[in-house]
Amino acid sequence: MKNMSLRQLYLVNPQGYPSAVATARASGADDILSAAVVCKTLEEALQGVDLVIGASARQRSVKWQQNDVLQTCEKIAKFGSNKTVAVVFGTEKSGLTNAELDLCQALMTIPGNPDYFSLNVAAAIQVFAYQNFVFKHQIQPQNSSNQLANFDELESFYKHLAQVLEHIDYFEEKRPKALLMRRLRRFFGRAAPEAQELAILRGILRNIKPFAK
Amino acid sequence: MKNMSLRQLYLVNPQGYPSAVATARASGADDILSAAVVCKTLEEALQGVDLVIGASARQRSVKWQQNDVLQTCEKIAKFGSNKTVAVVFGTEKSGLTNAELDLCQALMTIPGNPDYFSLNVAAAIQVFAYQNFVFKHQIQPQNSSNQLANFDELESFYKHLAQVLEHIDYFEEKRPKALLMRRLRRFFGRAAPEAQELAILRGILRNIKPFAK
Repeated sequence: MKNMSLRQLYLVNPQGYPSAVATARASGADDILSAAVVCKTLEEALQGVDLVIGASARQRSVKWQQNDVLQTCEKIAKFGSNKTVAVVFGTEKSGLTNAELDLCQALMTIPGNPDYFSLNVAAAIQVFAYQNFVFKHQIQPQNSSNQLANFDELESFYKHLAQVLEHIDYFEEKRPKALLMRRLRRFFGRAAPEAQELAILRGILRNIKPFAK
Repeated sequence: MKNMSLRQLYLVNPQGYPSAVATARASGADDILSAAVVCKTLEEALQGVDLVIGASARQRSVKWQQNDVLQTCEKIAKFGSNKTVAVVFGTEKSGLTNAELDLCQALMTIPGNPDYFSLNVAAAIQVFAYQNFVFKHQIQPQNSSNQLANFDELESFYKHLAQVLEHIDYFEEKRPKALLMRRLRRFFGRAAPEAQELAILRGILRNIKPFAK
């Protein structure tokens, strides 16, 4: 991270932190390690973040917005410099769970050998950090006057949407809630609604409510 | 290496090879490790090579041809495919000696934080291998096997949406229909829903209908 000018490390429910071994290995970059923010849950870590990107080695069955590292870092570089972007990496063994990916607006994949791909998490982070550094120094961020809805606002919208869909008996056996909500999250996450647009959508949801059974 | 489709590993005067620890860590890529060619000297390893590139973290005093990873990999990609390119990495502790760099035709540097740079050799090789892979294989477009909703389907959706919004008394003086529909069109248009996603959204609209006044 420090090699590539990344500074803000968040650790979600770490197995061992602080760790003497980790500190020793950080040689010269232990300032980043000791300044890490420890969170109990991923949701907690993502409060106030404007764009959440999940790292994934494999193609997912549900249609996420999948970009490779290059496209992802280009997107980040173009993103307003006053915005916060989180790139989420899972555990060494199993990566991110689907529930964790549900909190992400886009997926980042690393291109590689189609016949053999098992990058460990340190290597994956290295590749991302390098590519991000290269793009940061090549691309000027766009000044978008439109405020994108942030993580908290999107989560709140999904919750509201799920309530309303329950309310109108939308979910049924052929339309399982978990699957449908995942598809809807993918769709709205990819669309990256502006705060104003989200307000319109929420206004619609509020108007559906009065028709109580 | 295997993750990024590199296959030919040469080891110059290795401290321990074969190594049970290395083989265990190679998990699935031990074929590359066991096929490694062991040489006593770097000169021996470079016999018959067409282009020799040395990896270096720091600027050298003597005027080498210095390229960053990006430029280097572009050069390799453009190099004849019937030619052999060697990329030489030094030891973890001290990198390549000047004598070893003398055998190289060009130097490859990895861009990074000017105030702190101490990539270990595995990370440096990972960055090179990734960049080399990307250049060798033109970036694949995003997963585009999914059928996007076409113009007619989108128009039909907007019509349906407007009907439902009328139905739930969403439009009012402060929420003029023309303006709101324009905003919604802009949002959904930008989101470019797939046909399947549009079907989900229309399913939701259909479920709102039964709550007639």
